[in-house]
Amino acid sequence: MAGKIMVRVVKIGGNIIDQPEKMTAFLPQFAALSGAKILVHGGGVLANQMALQLGISQTMIEGRRITDLDTLRIAVMVYGGWINKQLVAKLYAVGCPAIGVCGADGDVIRAVKRPVKKVDFGWAGDVTSVNTEQLHGWLAKGLAPVMSPITHDGRGQLLNTNADTIAQEVAKSLSKAFHVELIYGFDQAGVLADTPEGRQVMPVLRRSDFQQLKATGQINGGMIPKLDNAFSALSSGVKGIRIGPAESLTQLIAGTAGTAIEW
Amino acid sequence: MAGKIMVRVVKIGGNIIDQPEKMTAFLPQFAALSGAKILVHGGGVLANQMALQLGISQTMIEGRRITDLDTLRIAVMVYGGWINKQLVAKLYAVGCPAIGVCGADGDVIRAVKRPVKKVDFGWAGDVTSVNTEQLHGWLAKGLAPVMSPITHDGRGQLLNTNADTIAQEVAKSLSKAFHVELIYGFDQAGVLADTPEGRQVMPVLRRSDFQQLKATGQINGGMIPKLDNAFSALSSGVKGIRIGPAESLTQLIAGTAGTAIEW
Repeated sequence: MAGKIMVRVVKIGGNIIDQPEKMTAFLPQFAALSGAKILVHGGGVLANQMALQLGISQTMIEGRRITDLDTLRIAVMVYGGWINKQLVAKLYAVGCPAIGVCGADGDVIRAVKRPVKKVDFGWAGDVTSVNTEQLHGWLAKGLAPVMSPITHDGRGQLLNTNADTIAQEVAKSLSKAFHVELIYGFDQAGVLADTPEGRQVMPVLRRSDFQQLKATGQINGGMIPKLDNAFSALSSGVKGIRIGPAESLTQLIAGTAGTAIEW
Repeated sequence: MAGKIMVRVVKIGGNIIDQPEKMTAFLPQFAALSGAKILVHGGGVLANQMALQLGISQTMIEGRRITDLDTLRIAVMVYGGWINKQLVAKLYAVGCPAIGVCGADGDVIRAVKRPVKKVDFGWAGDVTSVNTEQLHGWLAKGLAPVMSPITHDGRGQLLNTNADTIAQEVAKSLSKAFHVELIYGFDQAGVLADTPEGRQVMPVLRRSDFQQLKATGQINGGMIPKLDNAFSALSSGVKGIRIGPAESLTQLIAGTAGTAIEW
């Protein structure tokens, strides 16, 4: 295992994408990472702005967005188009060769339309396979794949997929052949917990701690699925996971910022 | 020269993109082409619709659109996002592995912002280089590059570039190492000229014919720059050029539809 090549999968979300000064801080740090690396990005406010301006109403059921055809089109335009291509152009400007892809490109991430049970989520895709050979080909050419959270079903349909899920599935798939580190950019300094000195970043979060903090309600809300996913990735072979501000990427990787998730 | 591998560069425009039944006819024909192939696409009505819906006014000077920042964003979203990714997903549905790229992806087409002389065309890009090694890498993996008419300047700026120009520059660059055929999809049956039997498609248009038909005004308007470009491509090493309806691609290539442009 020690001989495996390292691949880092870095996921960034709206808090970086929507704040130019944070993006300007992040990109050179990503470019400076040695070795193979993949950037997975989510959305940001632009998709909501576009929907608003175009008069497209967003349907939410149980806190989750329903991807109707108009919403899918906006997601593909904004995530797969504007944000993705801007990131690639900006990475070249800081000396980082890159290739922007969605799941359809090179068939790199295939998904199925989420099955309708209680709720029909519309054109939302659940990942079924990651084409690691394709990813490896791009990495071997020295390109950093920049992945938007759009997938396809192989039958001509694009699908909207959660960016955290893309990052996790890519990391899990690559961990069969590579030493994979997964870095989740986050809008807080890391995983926070109450201490005698107040609410502080936990430098390390182990699974047993998580179970306990979840039980006492100290970790709650949107952080729970994120951490559930992180532990699931660790159990699937991902070697290291860090959560924290993406604009402090160098420190996150050095272990001097954010939270390390350990089994 | 006879031993060179063939690459076909097929350019499609709005008349295919906006008409589902023509697209449905075109895609399986493109998929069925043997050997290496590249699809270059333009826009269609969606970009104009989006601009209208978003209240973005289009500035035209001397019949050419000025690419302000809002117009660039729409171009990247619609061409680089929705149209590009839909084409890739639909090509997989007909068994054609593909990768959707703009000029920034893999640094495949670099451009400069068009120099301001009498008119500032805004974020319009004039192609400066085509990365044929990158194209070759994708072709060698059996992927059909699907190219949107967006380029970048290597310094972080995306640029809007004419799709005919992209097709032509790609064809010219590849012709150094490959036997390149360039197929321009067109909204007419081919190059038309007046004959004793009425206005008919010319099966072949030679350069001397073109000069004469241009002089007599039988070929005019937007067809002239298209044909000027075609002859320029031939003089730069492109081996064959055909112009005609992309939904008749198989016949175009067989020489039973459209117009062959010859020196």
